[in-house]
Formats: sequence, structure tokens, C-alpha cells
Amino acid sequence: MTERVVLAYSGGLDTSVCIPWIAEETGAEVIAVAVDVGQNGEDLDIIRKRALACGAVEAEVADARDEFADGYCLPAIRANALYMDRYPLVSALSRPVIVKHLVAAARKHGATTVAHGCTGKGNDQVRFEVGISSLAPDLTCIAPVRDYAMTRDKAIAFAEAKNLPIVTTKKSPYSIDQNVFGRAVETGFLEDIWNAPIEDVYEYTQNPADARDADEVVITFEHGAPVAVDGREVTVLQAIEELNRRAGAQGVGRIDMVEDRLVGIKSREVYEAPGAIALITAHQELENVTVERELARYKRTIEQRWAELVYDGLWFSPLKRALDGFVAEANRHVSGDIRMTLHGGRAVVTGRRSEESLYDFGLATYDTGDTFDQSQAKGFIELFGLSGKIAARRDGQS
Amino acid sequence: MTERVVLAYSGGLDTSVCIPWIAEETGAEVIAVAVDVGQNGEDLDIIRKRALACGAVEAEVADARDEFADGYCLPAIRANALYMDRYPLVSALSRPVIVKHLVAAARKHGATTVAHGCTGKGNDQVRFEVGISSLAPDLTCIAPVRDYAMTRDKAIAFAEAKNLPIVTTKKSPYSIDQNVFGRAVETGFLEDIWNAPIEDVYEYTQNPADARDADEVVITFEHGAPVAVDGREVTVLQAIEELNRRAGAQGVGRIDMVEDRLVGIKSREVYEAPGAIALITAHQELENVTVERELARYKRTIEQRWAELVYDGLWFSPLKRALDGFVAEANRHVSGDIRMTLHGGRAVVTGRRSEESLYDFGLATYDTGDTFDQSQAKGFIELFGLSGKIAARRDGQS
Amino acid sequence: MTERVVLAYSGGLDTSVCIPWIAEETGAEVIAVAVDVGQNGEDLDIIRKRALACGAVEAEVADARDEFADGYCLPAIRANALYMDRYPLVSALSRPVIVKHLVAAARKHGATTVAHGCTGKGNDQVRFEVGISSLAPDLTCIAPVRDYAMTRDKAIAFAEAKNLPIVTTKKSPYSIDQNVFGRAVETGFLEDIWNAPIEDVYEYTQNPADARDADEVVITFEHGAPVAVDGREVTVLQAIEELNRRAGAQGVGRIDMVEDRLVGIKSREVYEAPGAIALITAHQELENVTVERELARYKRTIEQRWAELVYDGLWFSPLKRALDGFVAEANRHVSGDIRMTLHGGRAVVTGRRSEESLYDFGLATYDTGDTFDQSQAKGFIELFGLSGKIAARRDGQS
Amino acid sequence: MTERVVLAYSGGLDTSVCIPWIAEETGAEVIAVAVDVGQNGEDLDIIRKRALACGAVEAEVADARDEFADGYCLPAIRANALYMDRYPLVSALSRPVIVKHLVAAARKHGATTVAHGCTGKGNDQVRFEVGISSLAPDLTCIAPVRDYAMTRDKAIAFAEAKNLPIVTTKKSPYSIDQNVFGRAVETGFLEDIWNAPIEDVYEYTQNPADARDADEVVITFEHGAPVAVDGREVTVLQAIEELNRRAGAQGVGRIDMVEDRLVGIKSREVYEAPGAIALITAHQELENVTVERELARYKRTIEQRWAELVYDGLWFSPLKRALDGFVAEANRHVSGDIRMTLHGGRAVVTGRRSEESLYDFGLATYDTGDTFDQSQAKGFIELFGLSGKIAARRDGQS
Repeated sequence: MTERVVLAYSGGLDTSVCIPWIAEETGAEVIAVAVDVGQNGEDLDIIRKRALACGAVEAEVADARDEFADGYCLPAIRANALYMDRYPLVSALSRPVIVKHLVAAARKHGATTVAHGCTGKGNDQVRFEVGISSLAPDLTCIAPVRDYAMTRDKAIAFAEAKNLPIVTTKKSPYSIDQNVFGRAVETGFLEDIWNAPIEDVYEYTQNPADARDADEVVITFEHGAPVAVDGREVTVLQAIEELNRRAGAQGVGRIDMVEDRLVGIKSREVYEAPGAIALITAHQELENVTVERELARYKRTIEQRWAELVYDGLWFSPLKRALDGFVAEANRHVSGDIRMTLHGGRAVVTGRRSEESLYDFGLATYDTGDTFDQSQAKGFIELFGLSGKIAARRDGQS
Repeated sequence: MTERVVLAYSGGLDTSVCIPWIAEETGAEVIAVAVDVGQNGEDLDIIRKRALACGAVEAEVADARDEFADGYCLPAIRANALYMDRYPLVSALSRPVIVKHLVAAARKHGATTVAHGCTGKGNDQVRFEVGISSLAPDLTCIAPVRDYAMTRDKAIAFAEAKNLPIVTTKKSPYSIDQNVFGRAVETGFLEDIWNAPIEDVYEYTQNPADARDADEVVITFEHGAPVAVDGREVTVLQAIEELNRRAGAQGVGRIDMVEDRLVGIKSREVYEAPGAIALITAHQELENVTVERELARYKRTIEQRWAELVYDGLWFSPLKRALDGFVAEANRHVSGDIRMTLHGGRAVVTGRRSEESLYDFGLATYDTGDTFDQSQAKGFIELFGLSGKIAARRDGQS
Repeated sequence: MTERVVLAYSGGLDTSVCIPWIAEETGAEVIAVAVDVGQNGEDLDIIRKRALACGAVEAEVADARDEFADGYCLPAIRANALYMDRYPLVSALSRPVIVKHLVAAARKHGATTVAHGCTGKGNDQVRFEVGISSLAPDLTCIAPVRDYAMTRDKAIAFAEAKNLPIVTTKKSPYSIDQNVFGRAVETGFLEDIWNAPIEDVYEYTQNPADARDADEVVITFEHGAPVAVDGREVTVLQAIEELNRRAGAQGVGRIDMVEDRLVGIKSREVYEAPGAIALITAHQELENVTVERELARYKRTIEQRWAELVYDGLWFSPLKRALDGFVAEANRHVSGDIRMTLHGGRAVVTGRRSEESLYDFGLATYDTGDTFDQSQAKGFIELFGLSGKIAARRDGQS
Repeated sequence: MTERVVLAYSGGLDTSVCIPWIAEETGAEVIAVAVDVGQNGEDLDIIRKRALACGAVEAEVADARDEFADGYCLPAIRANALYMDRYPLVSALSRPVIVKHLVAAARKHGATTVAHGCTGKGNDQVRFEVGISSLAPDLTCIAPVRDYAMTRDKAIAFAEAKNLPIVTTKKSPYSIDQNVFGRAVETGFLEDIWNAPIEDVYEYTQNPADARDADEVVITFEHGAPVAVDGREVTVLQAIEELNRRAGAQGVGRIDMVEDRLVGIKSREVYEAPGAIALITAHQELENVTVERELARYKRTIEQRWAELVYDGLWFSPLKRALDGFVAEANRHVSGDIRMTLHGGRAVVTGRRSEESLYDFGLATYDTGDTFDQSQAKGFIELFGLSGKIAARRDGQS
């Protein structure tokens, strides 16, 4: 039987060229798989037909937007996942859901190989290939750009030679990856890290410096999941979309950073993630209200490792799975409302209320109604500081 | 010989009353010590004279602004210290420098006790007392408000009865603690955590929503310390002051959060720290450029613990000292320029340049000049993912 | 209605005296609760009758041995819990199960207070009281020894004056706490930390230096729980008991250490825990075989925090609960056999086999059958070391 | 000019064959460098002459035993470094000191390449190559066994064909790496992880089951370094050597474990490290006595990461350097005596005394002389448990 290769297909020039290229290089039949994770691209059916026109023996398209929001973005919100304290893992989150569909297609169509369009110097190749080997260790992976030196110029020449039904315009200066959780932009002039981004690079967000009225929003969470916006019930996908729109209109969620890639280099990245940033900001503050102190402190360390693992392509790893259990348990009581002002690039929490609140007015107030027994403090301070005091006696610091 | 008590003296009503109150309660002589950490209050000499007029046998005042900036704020900048990812430890940082002066005064004047004006339900009592027991384990501590039930009303009555030379107006609705690194505000209506702050609570920052022109600033760091602003050499104190002014004018650095106190309760806190937030933001991005990945990742965990320790009053603890060594070593190469736009409540990095940069254009670029050897990736991915792949074979995930 | 106090009752002199003492001090009725956690003491019925004879209005006794083994010792085995890398938390584990029974009795009998016999300088007072406040925040706690200055001498005098039906012999030089998971000994001459323990202090273990034949045992685990010993099915309790016997006969599990107490002091402790040490040693090695590397590495950090929390009396805390989820997930595949030689104070693993093994002979062997593709290593090393290499280029180390 | 290659030379068959083999493969001149790290092999001068006889253009030998003990073993003792809680990093510690000598030789002789004899599936290739790229990022590395498929059989055939002055006996069944800090053994029958080791594999240690008298030793540390044994001043090297002898004679320090390699596989390893285990055990207990609790707790996490980094070949990494600062600071007060009984495979601490002790008899004793103020406990417990109590009120656990 002829070998079969499943290709992660976007509908664009590069992966369209990959179809006949892989067929030529390997002699295998190519099955194209396109997954909609909210990238707002072309109609899935058009993409499917183009794959077939380029020579795919099968083409599968999947609307995975809710699956992505519920199964990948939501755990990230619960983990307040910000790689290097900034980046909400936009691309890193989408790879595992795509991997799941690629593996399912490989099983369905009896393929032994999965192909993707990544280069050999980024994170995404690792995320695809480690993801696949974690779900289907028997499958092998190929990356034509990396493994068969399929450069852009060669791809265009190939497309023209083969008369492929795709537009081979000159490449846009921007290299983009986007989905419902955000958008990543790389481009030549940003590779000089002293250069500032220009407005032209942004699409999900308006200029935060523009004058406009503030937008106030109330987000309701249950167990760490956004379930309502301004009182209207929403799915996680709808919550992200609505906040992309509303926080994006206020310029919220632009990120410009130098980032540590898994392959060992530093790169300049510009992101916009208005919904993700607004939701994580709200979620963090609701945790401040509802999560006990020691759990909250330890969760920060867990969150950091969670974000690193997902960034590093280890979504399906045993450690990630064990951390998920911790994160879920920590979100058990993260239910309630957060009121937030979206304005001028800022998403600012201005109010919180929750039936699960651990904020105790009686213990906190300095006014009438104070129930805190201050006489306990003396003993607490003495024993809390005792090990240090004994050390100080020895060390004779003063 | 008569016992002597050193009192942490602010010049305000409460600690002024403490002077004769402590004398009455204990029969001891009171020595007032006022420390200027940039709180922008009254003239130190006026404060000194008031202490004497209230009955202090000695009164010491110290301009500790540079000492505070260099020895306490700078380590916090190097540690990117944000308690609960938000609060730059404004009050927590000032307590140990005040403690140092209190202990020095106790030694100089032969005092056996140190007194402070804190209540029994906050963090500051712990910071004062654990700090003192760590520097001078032989000294004892008293807190008249907590230990002798010196309420505000009693203090006013006492002041009037004793005819103390202080104004006993009705208490301001705001309870404030401020120094050059920031300002903390508590007030009755904010104890309802659904209420938003009003403009009236802020003093270091303008309303970020006001229309104004952006301010661009270039901050130069050496080994993690700010050494120049827009090319002009500055001390750490001057850097904080200039950025308080300029970032404050843009509404940068407002924080509104529910916070976990060391004494076990949650409290609502509003802070403004324009200089601190601008400097930490700049410092973080310069680290992104100059600190190696594994060091940078681990440093985040260290930073969190550092912030918790300082928040918890353990500035002088052995663990804090050992973490300081780590933080200092990690800042060895954190030198260079950060360009930042201050505007509309945002402090946004737009450029970075450094002789110590680890950003390698040749390795990072996707354009001409790419020196990255993509052929290495295949082997890397295989071994990086191998332990997970073996586990997947066992677990049979798909 | 008369107030009621539930007392943690051991049957010994001190808690027997507590019954009438508490009644006198508080005017409350006392309900004695004795919990068998495998301390091998007197018959429960005798204890119950003594409590009544001392004036308890009710006396409850519970055989909690299996509950203790399954719900408290097993999680500790799964967490390889060794406080300060040595102490298997013998006493710390028993407090929460006793607390559960005390709270249940308080609910049943309408008590508002719980009393225990601990002093004010140990860990157990914290474990009892924090445990109770975490299960029943409305109950209050008293500790007659600490709160009513009930010293040993006063207790004996009181017992004699009241003619209590207990033997008031001179105190044994040893202060002992023991249960099925181990035994803790404190005694005067060990308070000089230069003194070595003598054979007389040990009861669960024979002298490891005595000549005897080795004992080989095979322990079977499922999901981290011991389920068979030498092929015979066992409960967790039986596994601990059998290994206490067999490992104890070989002198395994003696621990002599200086320990950091929660109350801030260091104390000298001698423990013996033959079953606990044998089981944890076996479990650790089975994890080495069955747990993926990154999960195993991270689990060590989790284990340390788990042990600290349990030592510190935070068994019922939200953080402990969240860590439990991690530990349970990490034990999912920890199934298989460990063969161990018990001899001369050592419990040494000599063989492991598991259907869940991640040890892959083909990948590991250097002989015929090697399936490891060594050509991958070059690329792995290059990218694994790249961030350090770039830093080295900058730093110019050599 | 002819290229030059520096070869890590052991004097054995494989690296002897490497000399002409590399010369043939690369056309370069080969410089052999042998480093004595206490492996107790042949005389260095004989090794030097053999290298020249095999065709090396230069041969350098270095006695690095003290350098290894002071600069590599001592930091490991201070860090209580045990990879996976067991393995004292014997081989992992020796690679960086060898790397230092290789790089120095490369600089001296103008070489551009460094060669080593490791295979492509172990850790040591990574340690050599990442070490070299961290000290000398301009040098390249080759490994003939891995890169030129120089198998054992081919090496013997080549040696015979070239008439090399080396004995080409059949390979010993044991693959050994040893130095003064310990000895690592791999061998075919141990690749079945159910098989127990036999006495034949051990050389540094006697059978712990043999009857013999116990040996008592007092080790004196200063700042974490062993400085005297039984009162006689020693260098670190001498301390390790003496304890290798004495603890080895008692069967101390045998380790048999399944280990997670950096390249992603699990392997079976047998080690013996009598001196290392005795010194680390003593050092740990001296830390228990002299290090403040919070520092001690955090140090365990640091130690684990330190051991992982060194195991993973990242000795010269920026993170390792920053952790070294922490470890050094934590050892500041680790001075004093540890008395230890070596017997029957056990190294058991029986006494400790130190001028830097934090053990306070007055606070610890339950007898006459007790200075601990038990009245402080009540307030401590209340506030220590308050955040959990508030959470319990919400959660309604019982």
C-alpha cells in the first residue's frame, strides 16, 4: 500500500506547495488537515477544495474553536499562564489541539507520517513533533521547510512550475500566527530590538493612545471559567471573542518583548491578546479574593512551570497533566464577579464580589465592627520570628 | 538608671501621644527617632522639636533617603519584587531601614525597648518587631496601640488633657503610608471591595484617563541599577524621584488589589508607585535581553520568595540574605538602555540596547544573515521529547 | 445547658488528670475520646472505663488503625514524605486522624471546646488546634498543660488528692509518642546533642549491629500503594505491620536528628520507623522505574512542601489538598514489584519489575539489541547548550 | 598550518586508538591530555609516553586531584548534592575539571577542536561538549565513537593493524568510571533491572554484611568544608580519601538505582561512594544544627536544582553560578564537629557540637532550665492557622 502523510494545512502558499512537494520527495499520498482555532481566515470549504486541487488525496477541515477555547484556553486562564510574566501562550496553546486532529486523521486514514510547515529554528516544530510523539509515538514527523530545504523562493518556483491554484505574490513583510486567543507578529524591522512597533503591525487592537470612552465590563467566573459577561451567559469561546472585541477596541493586550525560545535563542516578539489579557487579569484578582494564602503563593510557582511546559511543547506530558490537577483543585472556589474598566490600553479591576470570598470585612475593617483579636499578635510575632532571633543571637549582627 | 525606650516617631498625632503615654505606662524615658525615607512630610527639624516638646528626652532625625533607595529599593528593583505579582513592597521596604536607625539609636542611648505605633492586625508590627529581634535580639518591643489599647479617641483625649503641642483634628478618612518608592492608601469605603477607588485617594499619580502627550524616557542600567535617565547620570534616589514625577504625571503605577496579609486575613489595598513600576518594568525587559534562559526562569521563583520574605518582615533573615546573593549574581550583566513610553497609565518598553545583550541577530533573523543551523533541530526534538515518548508508548494515549 | 468539652484521651496519667481538672477549671462536662492508631497500648475498653472512672460524662474509643493507614500513612508513602529528608512524619500524620474523631465526637455530643494534653512548645499543639480550626472553625481549643499550668507534679498531686484510679508512679525518663507508622522518643540525656542514643531507647527495632541472617522481601505496589508482601495480599495496615516486624528485626529505620520545630526552635529527636522507611525506600525506587523524568523531578519539590505542610499541622489546608491531587496523579503508574534485602539496619533495593516500567532495555543496553539512535545526540547537545554558549561568547570565560 | 585536535585521553584502548583514528579522519594533529582526578590508574608518565607512541604530537598530563576535590567535590558536599536523592554525581563532577584542562591545552597548543571518547547515548558527551562550549564557544567537539562509528571491534582491529603499543584484550564485562569521589559501574547483567549486583562489581567498598568492628570518626567542618578528621587537619582531598578508606571498609556508600539520563532514557546504575556519602551525611546533620529553618527549607529546593544542573552538564552555566552564591552563603555558619559511627554499610551520626549551633538547650529542654515562654503559643497558633480557618468557615468541611 502507498504510504500516507498527514499534513497540517493552513491554505496558504507554503503548506499548499507542501502537498505536491511531499508527494514528490516521499512518494506518499498526502492528506491535508486544516483546523479552525479562530484564526479568522478563509472559509473552511474553500481551503478544503484548494488542498484537493493541489493534489491531496483527502482533505479534512475541522471547526475546533470551542474545543480550543474549552480545552486549551480555559486551562491557561485558570493557570494565569503568562510565559516570562507576559506572553499568554497564544501559538503554544493552539499546537496541541491541532496535533490532536492530525493524529486522529492519521489514525483514520492509516498514515504513518505527519508533516508540518514550520522552520527549524522556532518553537512550533518542537510543539508539533513532541506533541505527536506524545500522542502517537509510532508516527514519524517531517517538516519540508527544515528537512527538504523548501525555502520560500523554491516554493514559489515550484508552485509556478506545477501550476498550483494558489496566488504566489511576494511575501508579506509580516509573519503572523493568530487564533482566537491572540495574534503573534514577527517582521524584519522588529528584529532590531531598539526599533519600536508601528501601528501597522496590529490588527486585534486599536491604538491605546486614541481618545475614546471607557468601557466597563463585569465578568462572571465559575470555578475559574468565564461564564457570563455583563450578566449574559457565554461559552468560553464567546467570552474570549467578546473581550477581544471590547478590550481590543480599547487597545488592551499589546505585548512587545524579547523572549527565550526553547531552541536556545532570544527572539523579539510582538503579540496582541486583548481577550486573554483581560480574562487573566480578572481571573487573577478573583483568585486574590477566593484562594487561601498558602495555596495562592504556591500556585504562582506552579503557574510558572505550567507556562514553561506549554511554551516548550510539553502539553501532553505527564508533568503537565499532574500540574493540571493542582490548577483545577485551586480553582474550585474561584467563582464570582469581577468589574473591570477597559480603557486606554488598560484592563483595570475596580470591583470584586463572590459568595466564595475569603475577604472578611469584620476582620479587615479598621472601623466599627472590627472582630480581629489584636492580642494574638504578640505571641505570633514572637514565635514567627524566633528561628531568626536565635540566629541573630549567634550572628551578633548589631 | 531609668529605663529608656526608643520610639519610631513620625511627627503625627499618634506617635506624638505615644511619647508621654509610654512614659506613663512604663516609667521609662522616651527617645524619639524620625527617619526620612522620602515621605515628603514636614521639615525634620520641626519634627525633632515637636518630639522634645511632647516630652522626649532625646530626639533623633535622619535623612535616610539615599540609604533607603540604594540599600532597599535597589535590591527590590533587581529582584523585580512584586508581592502577589502586583505590589512593589512600598511599606515593607521602608520598615527595615527604619529598624536599622531605631536599633542604632537604642545602642547609642542605652535603651532596652523599642516602641512603634502600629496596630495589632497589620503587617508592619511584624516587620518592626521581627526586624528588631533580628538585629538586636536583646531588645524588647512594645506597641502602645496594640499593647496598651491606645485608641485614636483615647489618644486625642490624652493629648488634650496633657496639652500636647499637636493639632488634634478629626482623623482624615485616609490611612496613608508613603515614601519615595510609593504610597499606600486604606480608607473606609474601600473596605467594600466592590467599590472602585475615586480620584481623591491618589496623590503620586494623575488620572491616566486625562488627555496629554506621551513622555518618552530612556533609562540606563548598570548591573541592574538605574544609573542614568535620558543620558543624565542619576543616583537611584534621583531615578525613582524623576520617574515618580514623569510616570506619575502619566498615571502610571496605580494598583488596586485584595492582598494576603501575614496575619492571615485578606485586605483591600490601593497603592501608587509610578517610579517603582516604571523602573521594574524596564528592568524586567533588560533582563529578558541580557540574562540566560535557565537563570531567568529560576530567577522568577527566587523573586517570588524574595518578595514574600520582604512582605513578611524577614528582610534581615538568613534566607533573604542568601537570596540576595543569587539576585546580585543574576544582575551581573543587566546593563544597557531601555526606551519606554509613559502614557495613559502605561509604561511600555519600546526599545532595548545593551553591550551585554544575548539577543543574537544572526541567530534570530529569518532574513539574510541567518546563521542558525536548522539541521540540529531534528536530533534536539527527538531527545528532548524522548522521555515523554517512552511514557506515551506505555500509556497508549491515542 | 452545661458546656461540654471533648478531650483527646490517651489513658495515661496526664490526660486522666485532665478530665477532672478541666471540669474544675471550666465547669464543663468532659467527654473523653481515645483513638487507636496502632500505638499498641492498653485495651480500648479498659481505657474507656478509666475515663469514666475519672469523671468523664461520656467516653468514646475508636479503632482507627485502618483509617490511619489508608488515609494518612498511604498518602505519605505516595509522597515519599520525609521531613528534612529524614523523618517520616510519624506523629504529624496521626494528629489529623485523631482530630477527625475529636470533631465528630464534639458534633455528636454538642461540645463547643476541644482539649488536648500537649505542652506549649511542641508541634502537636499546633497540629491539634489548626486541624480543629480547619475542620470546625467554630470550636475552641484548650490545652490544660499550657493554658492552666498543669505541670506533671501538680497533676500527680491532683490525682492523689482526688483519689483518681490511676498509677502515679514517677515519670519514665522517656517521652514517647508511637503509632503503627513509627515511634518518637525524647529524653533528658538526648537533649545534649553530643550524646549518642543508647539501645534502651529503642523498641520497634533491634540493634542493627547484631549478627543475624538477612531477610529478603518482595513488595508489590499498585498506584503507589503496597498491596502484597511476598505475594500475599495485604492491606496498607498489614503491610506496615509486617514490615515493622521484619525490617524492625533487622534494625532498619532508626533516625537520630536535630529538627526544626514549627515553633521556631531546634530539638533533638530520635525516631524508629522500620515499616515506613522500608516502604518509602521501595516506593521511591519503583517511582524511579515508572515515573517520567520531568514529573519525577518536579515531584521532589512537591514532596518537600507536602512534608513541611504536614509537619506544620496543615493537613487539612487548601494547599495540602491541591498537592494531594498532584501526588495521586504522579502515582498513577507506580505499580510493580520491588525486591529488597533487609539486613543490618539497611533496607536495600536489589530488583524491580513492573508492567508500567519506563526502563527500555533496547534503549539502555550497550550490548546487542541497542536501538538508541546516537546520531540524534549532536543536534540535541548543540541546542540544549545554545543559550549557555551564547552567554559564554558574551562573557568570554576562557 | 595543520589543524590541531585536543583529545581527552585516559590511556586505555579506546582513547589510544582515537589518536591515530582522529588523525586519519581529520588530517589534524592530535594532542593527548590526561587528567588525574583520583582514578588510581596508571602512572601519569606511562600514560603520557603511550600517547606519544600512539602518534600524539603532544601529550599533557595533569595531577588535578586537589583541584577536583576543592573546586568540584567540595561545592557538591556543601550542596548535599544527590541526584534523585541518591547519586553523589561522581562522574558528573569530574567532567568540568577535565574540560578546564582540555580547553587550557587547546589554547596553549592552538587547537580548534576537542575530542572525547564518549558514546552518543550517555550523559558524559553532553557534559564534555556543553562544558567546552561554555568555556570556549569557538571550539568544536568531536566524539569518534559517536561521530565516526568507532566501535570496540573496529578499534581493536585498527589497533592491531596499526600495531599500536596497547594491549587489545577482550573487553572487561564492566564499564567503569571512577575518581576520588566515587566509582560508577555498568555491566550487561545489571541491564536486567531485576538482577541484584554481585560482590564482584565493587572495589571501593567491602561487603557491608561481613562481620567487623565499628569505626567511630569525628569530622570537623568549617564553612561546610571538612577540615579535620579525628582532630587531624586534612585537605578536602585527604578527607575524601580517608573516608573512602574507612567508610569503604565498612561497606558504606553503595548505591543501586534506576536513573533518569539527560538524553531521555532510564538506565540502571551501580555506584560506590563511601567518602562522598559519609561526608554529605555528616554535612547535612551539621546543617540541621547550624542553619536557620527557613534557609534550610529553601536550600533543599536549591540543592535539588543544583544537582540536576550538574548532572545535566551545566556546571559552567549562569544559573549554576548563581546557585553557588546561595549555597556558599548558606554554608557560612556550617562549622563544628560531627561524630559518626561507620559500620555495616551505615554512616550514622551520633553526636554534633558547634560554636555556631542554633540548638538552644534552654529553649529545647523539658527539664529544669526551660526558658521557652509557652504563653506565646496561643496567639501564634491562632494567626498561623487563621487563613485556613477562614477558608474552612467558607468551605464548611465538617
